[in-house]
Amino acid sequence: MKKVAVLLSGCGVFDGAEIHESVITLLSLARAGVAVQCYAPNREQLHVVNHLTGEVEAGQGRNILVEAARIARGEVKPLEDYQGDCDALILPGGFGAAKNLCNFALVGADNELHQDVQEFVEAFISANKPVGFVCISPVMMPKLLPAGVRGTIGTDADTAAAFNAMGGEHQSACVDAIVVDERYKVVSTPAYMLAGNITEAADGIEKLVAQVVDWI
Amino acid sequence: MKKVAVLLSGCGVFDGAEIHESVITLLSLARAGVAVQCYAPNREQLHVVNHLTGEVEAGQGRNILVEAARIARGEVKPLEDYQGDCDALILPGGFGAAKNLCNFALVGADNELHQDVQEFVEAFISANKPVGFVCISPVMMPKLLPAGVRGTIGTDADTAAAFNAMGGEHQSACVDAIVVDERYKVVSTPAYMLAGNITEAADGIEKLVAQVVDWI
Repeated sequence: MKKVAVLLSGCGVFDGAEIHESVITLLSLARAGVAVQCYAPNREQLHVVNHLTGEVEAGQGRNILVEAARIARGEVKPLEDYQGDCDALILPGGFGAAKNLCNFALVGADNELHQDVQEFVEAFISANKPVGFVCISPVMMPKLLPAGVRGTIGTDADTAAAFNAMGGEHQSACVDAIVVDERYKVVSTPAYMLAGNITEAADGIEKLVAQVVDWI
Repeated sequence: MKKVAVLLSGCGVFDGAEIHESVITLLSLARAGVAVQCYAPNREQLHVVNHLTGEVEAGQGRNILVEAARIARGEVKPLEDYQGDCDALILPGGFGAAKNLCNFALVGADNELHQDVQEFVEAFISANKPVGFVCISPVMMPKLLPAGVRGTIGTDADTAAAFNAMGGEHQSACVDAIVVDERYKVVSTPAYMLAGNITEAADGIEKLVAQVVDWI
């Protein structure tokens, strides 16, 4: 049975992994008949956001791996436990992708991936294994893949410009579309970068998962 | 456009709303073409559980409404804001249903609903509006509906016995089945009371949502 890794960045759209995108990814993978293993960094989140008010909660700390375990029902491993045994990787979005996996939310096109994330994702890319990037997570693509890699974050002009400034070749896409770069077996979809509701996010993610599973 | 309320009890299977069940409910409702409004109690959770270790985190407090906002992407209202404008109600499971909405996890068949939850759900039942109970949440049915109300929590003998001791008529059901009591427009499904994976949970929840939407 094929196995796909899902890289979570916490639990909640404003400071962690976007929950709808994460669950739809897990459900789509399971319905495609592949096994899933969730992974997350074992570090503190950048911060904790009250999702009712949108305000940062001063003095609060939460661990990315521990919070990701809420989405994974406890079945999540720290990045350093990865043994090379997965056939593909998918990164859901949420601000956690841009705050906890890299620092795009803080520095834009000067974005750097956290070292543990860089090594984890490169283990897939260097093995020519497919990687799917959802929502804001495609901003990591230019730092992981050769110049000119094609990806989408939807239509946001500033984010698209940053994608290109980092060396990528951004392609605008509507909410239910995927952008595929066959050369590197990478696929991306806008999801909640554009989605006005959960069905729009799901339509694109289901296509992305189908593409990833088709490759493996 | 019809509108369905979803009652959340936090965010995470061990101390709040089960995340997969909640998101699958939201997605199924949206794909059925109905609007959704999430609600949650504006109170402290019973406790906070580290979902990686399963241990209760001493000295930590989290608010049910604030944590539910993670699942609802901020779009959740406190119970007391309900204006009678929804056509049906669905309660996802997770231990939060048995810890934060009622006290079944603490006292079993001596279960009492929190007053705010009792009033909120009764607003639907007294108006003859459909209510769907997922996973462990059917343990609230006997306290809300006339003696002999039919529901399922799957096959767990102790929980089924408690359901009957409270006045309900438990019916065993397999993981992807629903139990319908047409007299009261209530429907239940085992979901993660039995599910071994997310697809099994989804199969039953999708049937439950279809039944609820069919009634409205």
